[in-house]
Amino acid sequence: MTRTVAAQTVVVGAGPVGSLLALLLARRGHQVIVYESRPDPRRLPAPPGRSINLTLAERGWHALRAVDADAAVHEICVPLYGRMIHSPYGACAFQPYTSRHDAIYSASRTELTDLLLEMVRAHPAVRIHFDHRCLEPDFAGRRLHLLGPGGVTTTVAARHVFAADGAWSTVRRGLLRAHGGSFFQRLSPMLYRELRVPRSGLTGDLARREALHLWPRGQCMLVGFPNLDGSATVSVFMPLTGEESFAALTTPPELTRFLLSECPDLLAASPALVEDFFARPPSLLVSSSCRPWIHEDWLALVGDAAHALVPFLGQGLNAGFEDCTVLLECIEESGGDWHAALRRYEQDRTANCETVIQLAEQHYDELAVRARDPLFRVRKWLEDRAYRLDPDRFVPLYTMVAFSRRPYTEVRCRQARQEEMLDRLMKHPAIRAREVGGHVDALIRDELAQLAG
Amino acid sequence: MTRTVAAQTVVVGAGPVGSLLALLLARRGHQVIVYESRPDPRRLPAPPGRSINLTLAERGWHALRAVDADAAVHEICVPLYGRMIHSPYGACAFQPYTSRHDAIYSASRTELTDLLLEMVRAHPAVRIHFDHRCLEPDFAGRRLHLLGPGGVTTTVAARHVFAADGAWSTVRRGLLRAHGGSFFQRLSPMLYRELRVPRSGLTGDLARREALHLWPRGQCMLVGFPNLDGSATVSVFMPLTGEESFAALTTPPELTRFLLSECPDLLAASPALVEDFFARPPSLLVSSSCRPWIHEDWLALVGDAAHALVPFLGQGLNAGFEDCTVLLECIEESGGDWHAALRRYEQDRTANCETVIQLAEQHYDELAVRARDPLFRVRKWLEDRAYRLDPDRFVPLYTMVAFSRRPYTEVRCRQARQEEMLDRLMKHPAIRAREVGGHVDALIRDELAQLAG
Repeated sequence: MTRTVAAQTVVVGAGPVGSLLALLLARRGHQVIVYESRPDPRRLPAPPGRSINLTLAERGWHALRAVDADAAVHEICVPLYGRMIHSPYGACAFQPYTSRHDAIYSASRTELTDLLLEMVRAHPAVRIHFDHRCLEPDFAGRRLHLLGPGGVTTTVAARHVFAADGAWSTVRRGLLRAHGGSFFQRLSPMLYRELRVPRSGLTGDLARREALHLWPRGQCMLVGFPNLDGSATVSVFMPLTGEESFAALTTPPELTRFLLSECPDLLAASPALVEDFFARPPSLLVSSSCRPWIHEDWLALVGDAAHALVPFLGQGLNAGFEDCTVLLECIEESGGDWHAALRRYEQDRTANCETVIQLAEQHYDELAVRARDPLFRVRKWLEDRAYRLDPDRFVPLYTMVAFSRRPYTEVRCRQARQEEMLDRLMKHPAIRAREVGGHVDALIRDELAQLAG
Repeated sequence: MTRTVAAQTVVVGAGPVGSLLALLLARRGHQVIVYESRPDPRRLPAPPGRSINLTLAERGWHALRAVDADAAVHEICVPLYGRMIHSPYGACAFQPYTSRHDAIYSASRTELTDLLLEMVRAHPAVRIHFDHRCLEPDFAGRRLHLLGPGGVTTTVAARHVFAADGAWSTVRRGLLRAHGGSFFQRLSPMLYRELRVPRSGLTGDLARREALHLWPRGQCMLVGFPNLDGSATVSVFMPLTGEESFAALTTPPELTRFLLSECPDLLAASPALVEDFFARPPSLLVSSSCRPWIHEDWLALVGDAAHALVPFLGQGLNAGFEDCTVLLECIEESGGDWHAALRRYEQDRTANCETVIQLAEQHYDELAVRARDPLFRVRKWLEDRAYRLDPDRFVPLYTMVAFSRRPYTEVRCRQARQEEMLDRLMKHPAIRAREVGGHVDALIRDELAQLAG
């Protein structure tokens, strides 16, 4: 059975990015229809399983403010002001993100999705249909085909289409097939499993809810997010094979030995950790990008459909929300020329998102490897000092990424120059001797003077 | 909201093993309730994605015959009489499974599941509830808790429970927690992706529908199953990382180069192969086993919940169906003593299934590595000759596994002796010179005489 529908603007996918975009469009006066492949979460709650806690930073908040969702989202977030580094011997060290008390915000994927869905439902200019899986679009005929409940196919003649159908997007697949475009997809050698630590198990430094908890172990890494209900979610990142890997931890005693040697504080926190570990398969992480992102004035990709990031920089959702912000700006400024608007959107976002994909991959090293290195702490101190001395000239990478909306491409260029400066400073005898004081500040100021503003 | 139900016998999970067991129990006069976590496939068809084609062999057919399902299942199967080995240069060689025209049968997981579900629905002694997710059982109170639609929890006071809830079984998790049992779970270094080749692309040797198609490439392997509709499903098995791996194939041009060098016949068969490859994440493969399998006279695990196998031997479903056969035999022969019945079932199946888990892992090597070796073909010829000369004394491993119901433990013991015999024969000058004829038969007969019957 087939039915045909005419529609102004269609958003495919009602994850956080799809919902946010629908709200932004509706506020600018568009009539929006949203199609989502999953069942209505009011009817069938999402099953437990794969979902790293989402992280909201400045780019994300900026977009949420534009639809007045920031206050409600704030209610379901836990602010994190820095990283708590757990050593294998139980000692902990807190590293604030900035000296200005900046925070990133941790939220559950399900709660954020449901909250934005409720706002979508409440908006009179948006209609949403669940249980509708989008097939590859008909680009020549400018039609979408959606497979609904009971095998009913709906054909939609949409004026404009925005595809937010995720990292394994079917719309993207059709777009690339139609254009013979280019596509890149890298599976991370790191997989992850999520463990839940109950509120009762969080004592001592583990109970500090203002920090992202980190067990950096080089070949593998554990990351703990405080949850709103007082519990914590710990993600174990490991390769599939090798000495320290998911394939090497085959029995509970082997896992217990591993936890005892690498994060004894965590093992003590939850008696069910070992059962939890084996209760679900590990999940894969993927980076992906493609070109084109658009089809004429008709269709554009947004969010994970256009660019998937590994989670180490916490920017996946933020980059997706920023797509929406930029897309709306391009539409506003184009004076009704949608093709020009989408072209500008594509040009801006492809370069920026390809950059943040690489920054996210590189950040594993900062979290898991360099975080253990005493010299890295010296470097971090220098960064912080330079930032305090001249915040216009020097801003640490993570601060630019998380606490500004500076384009990612600009972040990378500035970072390259800043790294060279830090390399030079790290070789200086006074720094090597870990001196502090006015003469060290003078050294840093000399270097800062050479950085372009 | 909670409601409580009293029930005679409960089966958790309506995959092929759960459905088969429900039918077997119902035929012996039990009143059965089946709980399945997925929605009713009549209402919501299964999404496309992960499912290697299932393989039915003698152990599977034996169980299907016991519920008169064999004729109907036969209708949805494609018989495969041997392996078609594809070389990188396009040449093909057909290796029959036996000289007796034995076949294994390929079926789609979805079609087999749906067919058995229809039989379950039609049986007056079985009731089935979809959308019910089983939580960890209450072993002390002998109660199951099931999370239904709208968050309603059903508590079931069941007389007996059989858990067929799959490789990531929640019931098993509870059982091991309650007993402090032992558990083993190995992730295979091989992951897989499935590709679909349309009927129109299957020409030449690729079109031969009576064979499992094999591209053995050592570090990786492709396996093609003919489907009922004339198309084929090709599974690509590869490690996640390394030189030939999923992580190394990041763009369509890289994949095309790989396919051109390793299986050019396949690349020519489907223009969409490259898009297909990147359209879904690769899936993980897992081996797992545990003890105990039972709780007193109340609960037993069956199928993947008790033992997960890698697919290289095509025995996962067959071993699961054999669990059901043996379980029913144990119940029949126990004269009402269910604890004795379940103990016997556990004792028989744990040893056999732990054996077939290992045999399945080892079989990757036979398919992907040794299948390319000319000396291996000599060995295969010797095996076949020995089997013809004295089928009581010598039966090739795959023949025992696929075309008999000999216990897996016995298969392994016999195989060890047979391998030693083949090792000795392979060193003989006449064999090394690849001679055939009466004097070679005499050599084989001498060796056969030394094998215990």
